[in-house]
Amino acid sequence: MFSHAKLIEDAVNEISKLPGIGKKTAFRLALFLLKEKKEYTEKLAAVLCKLRLETQYCKQCHNVADSATCRICANPQRDQATICVVENIQDVLAIENTTQYKGLYHVLGGVISPIEGIGPDQLQITSLVSRVKAENTQEVIFALSTTIEGDTTAFYITKKLKDCSVKISTIARGVAVGGELEYTDEVTLGRSIIGRVSYQ
Amino acid sequence: MFSHAKLIEDAVNEISKLPGIGKKTAFRLALFLLKEKKEYTEKLAAVLCKLRLETQYCKQCHNVADSATCRICANPQRDQATICVVENIQDVLAIENTTQYKGLYHVLGGVISPIEGIGPDQLQITSLVSRVKAENTQEVIFALSTTIEGDTTAFYITKKLKDCSVKISTIARGVAVGGELEYTDEVTLGRSIIGRVSYQ
Repeated sequence: MFSHAKLIEDAVNEISKLPGIGKKTAFRLALFLLKEKKEYTEKLAAVLCKLRLETQYCKQCHNVADSATCRICANPQRDQATICVVENIQDVLAIENTTQYKGLYHVLGGVISPIEGIGPDQLQITSLVSRVKAENTQEVIFALSTTIEGDTTAFYITKKLKDCSVKISTIARGVAVGGELEYTDEVTLGRSIIGRVSYQ
Repeated sequence: MFSHAKLIEDAVNEISKLPGIGKKTAFRLALFLLKEKKEYTEKLAAVLCKLRLETQYCKQCHNVADSATCRICANPQRDQATICVVENIQDVLAIENTTQYKGLYHVLGGVISPIEGIGPDQLQITSLVSRVKAENTQEVIFALSTTIEGDTTAFYITKKLKDCSVKISTIARGVAVGGELEYTDEVTLGRSIIGRVSYQ
């Protein structure tokens, strides 16, 4: 691509390193910044630096936080006896958006995947086990991917938690709300029959 | 959307002001920055501020430039006697990418559009006319949109240039290279017949 000016070229190169943004989009964004007031660019730049330099990870659940403890862990109204185990920060957001869960979280930072070279030691499993032991945890809910890696991780953690008298569960798998049986894959439909809920 | 932390919330709000970027994409970009080294965010922020604060507009053609004159106007190898009139900076880029044009440009900054309240005075028309008069311009090529606004603008400038002995032309309209006649709209096909090129 022909470059208009070194300043634009540099900006396009950096912007296009962001995921899902190619050179053309980056160029469009650069021109947008040029058209907008200079205060916007300054604020954007400041906020990005602040985000990167000041964001911390909650020392208890490893979610992102403004301080040492995240908003969820610091909230006394949350059910302190239930921990939902998720892979990453996006999953916390997804579950929070349902407004159906009032317990705490534990962000593993991924799942056990020998192919990608991720073992239990690279994940926040030890801290989860010591958390369950130290606190008076009643239930651990797995909300991991339904993949071999997700199932392996859940199985591994379950074994580690054998000595603790804690209820262990996993989120329900089944036909989506509003989903048609005809178009649901066999595995999901099979699971929805096994995990059927009785009317009473 | 539930907010994890004030820092992320602020970043998502600012990022999602960019065109074509919604809250979800902004959140994904914020998480990407958190995963990357902090040097990347700092460099990105610096380059955006530099772009916004240091970019100038060429005093001759109004294209973006690092200094008072843009790279194209400053290049003595370009044909100084030909000026291609375009609406915006992206159009300069599009024509430059063809590598078929060796003359100079003139960026109007838009087209005359009474509906949007854009009159000739808001565009770089006066500077184009004085440029053509002052320099020894031989040809002015219009590369404007084929809309009523684009045609009006070309017509208005043509009238303003009446006194100058300058050749005025417009880029060819016709069937795209590789395009099928069957699927070409009538207006374009009609123009391609009127503007036919003889084999000799």
